[in-house]
Amino acid sequence: MRAVDIIIKKRNGLSLSREEIHFIIDGYVKGEIPDYQVSALLMAICFQGLNKDEQVDLTMEMLNSGEKIDLSSIKGICVDKHSTGGVGDKTTLVIAPIIAACGLKIAKMSGRGLGHTGGTLDKLESIPGFKIAISPKDFFKQVEEIGIAVVGQTANITPADKKLYALRDVTGTIDSVGLIAGSIMSKKLASGAHSILLDVKVGDGAFMTTIEDARVLARAMVDIGNSCGRKTVAMLTDMDQPLGEAVGNSLEVIEVIETLKGNGPQDFTKLCFEICTEMLLMTDFAKTKEEALFMINKVLKNGSAMEKLRQMIIYQGGNPKVIEDYQLFAQAKRVVDIRSDKTGYIKKIHTHRIGDAAMILGAGRKTKDDIIDPSVGIKVLGKIGDFVNAGEIIAKVYSNDREEESAINITKEAFEIINEVVQKNKIVLDIVQ
Amino acid sequence: MRAVDIIIKKRNGLSLSREEIHFIIDGYVKGEIPDYQVSALLMAICFQGLNKDEQVDLTMEMLNSGEKIDLSSIKGICVDKHSTGGVGDKTTLVIAPIIAACGLKIAKMSGRGLGHTGGTLDKLESIPGFKIAISPKDFFKQVEEIGIAVVGQTANITPADKKLYALRDVTGTIDSVGLIAGSIMSKKLASGAHSILLDVKVGDGAFMTTIEDARVLARAMVDIGNSCGRKTVAMLTDMDQPLGEAVGNSLEVIEVIETLKGNGPQDFTKLCFEICTEMLLMTDFAKTKEEALFMINKVLKNGSAMEKLRQMIIYQGGNPKVIEDYQLFAQAKRVVDIRSDKTGYIKKIHTHRIGDAAMILGAGRKTKDDIIDPSVGIKVLGKIGDFVNAGEIIAKVYSNDREEESAINITKEAFEIINEVVQKNKIVLDIVQ
Repeated sequence: MRAVDIIIKKRNGLSLSREEIHFIIDGYVKGEIPDYQVSALLMAICFQGLNKDEQVDLTMEMLNSGEKIDLSSIKGICVDKHSTGGVGDKTTLVIAPIIAACGLKIAKMSGRGLGHTGGTLDKLESIPGFKIAISPKDFFKQVEEIGIAVVGQTANITPADKKLYALRDVTGTIDSVGLIAGSIMSKKLASGAHSILLDVKVGDGAFMTTIEDARVLARAMVDIGNSCGRKTVAMLTDMDQPLGEAVGNSLEVIEVIETLKGNGPQDFTKLCFEICTEMLLMTDFAKTKEEALFMINKVLKNGSAMEKLRQMIIYQGGNPKVIEDYQLFAQAKRVVDIRSDKTGYIKKIHTHRIGDAAMILGAGRKTKDDIIDPSVGIKVLGKIGDFVNAGEIIAKVYSNDREEESAINITKEAFEIINEVVQKNKIVLDIVQ
Repeated sequence: MRAVDIIIKKRNGLSLSREEIHFIIDGYVKGEIPDYQVSALLMAICFQGLNKDEQVDLTMEMLNSGEKIDLSSIKGICVDKHSTGGVGDKTTLVIAPIIAACGLKIAKMSGRGLGHTGGTLDKLESIPGFKIAISPKDFFKQVEEIGIAVVGQTANITPADKKLYALRDVTGTIDSVGLIAGSIMSKKLASGAHSILLDVKVGDGAFMTTIEDARVLARAMVDIGNSCGRKTVAMLTDMDQPLGEAVGNSLEVIEVIETLKGNGPQDFTKLCFEICTEMLLMTDFAKTKEEALFMINKVLKNGSAMEKLRQMIIYQGGNPKVIEDYQLFAQAKRVVDIRSDKTGYIKKIHTHRIGDAAMILGAGRKTKDDIIDPSVGIKVLGKIGDFVNAGEIIAKVYSNDREEESAINITKEAFEIINEVVQKNKIVLDIVQ
């Protein structure tokens, strides 16, 4: 077998066999196949795509290139949830306590990544004392005892994906459904959960900007998951405006706590309910939507969902008093109100620009060495379809001086306000299973 | 400027600016841009193509990466001729003496390359004593004095093309019109001729198997040549059967001599006449086709064309007696007749298989370290449209034992014979200027 023949085969639009995909990935990880052949193949894949079998084979090759987490010793059903990422997406921190309170187990290992705000791990680290570096033994013990843990990756999972991703990043080959699906799903499969809920974000603040593209990615990931014996469901959800109000690490954790108290923003609360419902249905914990909603409402009302969050904070060394006293979070020096110039309806929010504004304030990482400032960020108070008067506050910028002026301008310009009535956005656009 | 942005631009189907092409080629030659980014860009070019401006800019970048031959000190019009390569293509060795005898100057520097038989240089080296390594001073002197020289490249021309070609070879990115056109034309422009005749072969034994593809390549090369101030014309010519009869180095030189004596195979003779006519017309040495044919016939009949070949052999150290005594060429040990199984008309000759047969006998190089055996090869006596009786000789295999059995079988199986009358092939399919 020669790498060049495999490249030409894909270039000509033919499908690669399992053996050919193994030859490439295994050879690449071992350093036997050079970067320049793999990058040419990746570009050919960007144009010709991967069929279902190829996607599964690629995913399995990446999965088998590293360690796998074996959750079989944990009693009960272990679930995982993954979001393709968006602005203000703190969903995991609400749904994990709710479904743990309902009796599912959530044993989640997260990466950090780059982005507008930190990942779930960074958000958790805004809780004073919270540790994300937990030994495998303590991790398993925590999941057994309280049914919930969100920790950093310690195992060397999917090294092939890491090497491929680094190459894709510098060769213009990030943006390919088959490669994205394989990358995400190899990590999800390696994390060991029995059921996987994928939240595929769609819109201006997401990686996928159209529903069509998002549906294709969702289909690919669901097919891979199900082909590999894991129950997998994808929800396509709106990212044409920031999710909820808070964008920024401690701001988002406060919003999570408020949501578990029943005071969360409407759109964000609705999304969390929908995701929890789907997770209870896919694991047969609930038979109907009504039954699922009843369970969710019960664990929120009786405080058991909040109790799960509190237990997780305690198990992972954090100060649980943050739940009652938000002053225990790091505070931004200044809060600047952003007011509407016009009277009218909010037509559009340039969501990725809001993300950019949060990042330059210090809420996210541009390069992996950047240090996150947990206190800064943006609160988006006006949402699409809202009527606002000129001079009304539509957002707040939480700043520690860094890039404050730019962040204020970007945030202000992110809102488009018109005279005509505007429909509110639907939050769940489709479900793929 | 970042290489990854240029890759993504081309991936998205946008045109690259002159500055971007310079950034890539210059950076690549200097080792500042790595192979893996260039191979990804090359693959994107294979899918998205290069427009006319990009092709010219790429060609000029490759041209300017190395030395250029300055033929301006030579009096008269210097012409060059390039073939995209085929089986039995010894055309240069007939047309160079004819047009030199007509008064044009042909100062040709050739590479060796891989292929079914050797290149023009290897064919010339089958003449005992013939030297292709000539100093630049002697090369210029020879062209001045006798108007004809065919020598090996000594100057470091188009190093960017050499580096890119080596990468394309192992990344499945050879086959792209823009890249092929740039590669060929950068070398032609560096060789300094004022007028360039391109012989683009089409068919089973050629790189371009369809007339449509060949026309696109021809158009690209002619546009580049003319944009760079060189008169350039391309002829699309048939390669659905071997050209002439001889395939193999000394066999081909003997056929060249026979053709200059007026005894060449009909198809090959016709092609040589057509190319010479076009070269005389494009340089204004003849005003009409009739005038050109008159000149060509004259220099053949009066022996002045043969005299040019003889002078070149003498100037380059070869034994000119080969013109009269073919026994002076290295002789194959055995000549095996290939006879037709059937009575009927020759419908098809699998030309690249004939090339393969010649190569395994030792007539060509598979890898650049292979040594060519000048004596071996194949004579193709039956051509498309010929009627043959069962048992009639349709080919001869000249062998020194190496792979004789395989070569015989391949040659035999290369002929398809049917009962219905078959039209003979046209030799010149189109002219692009």
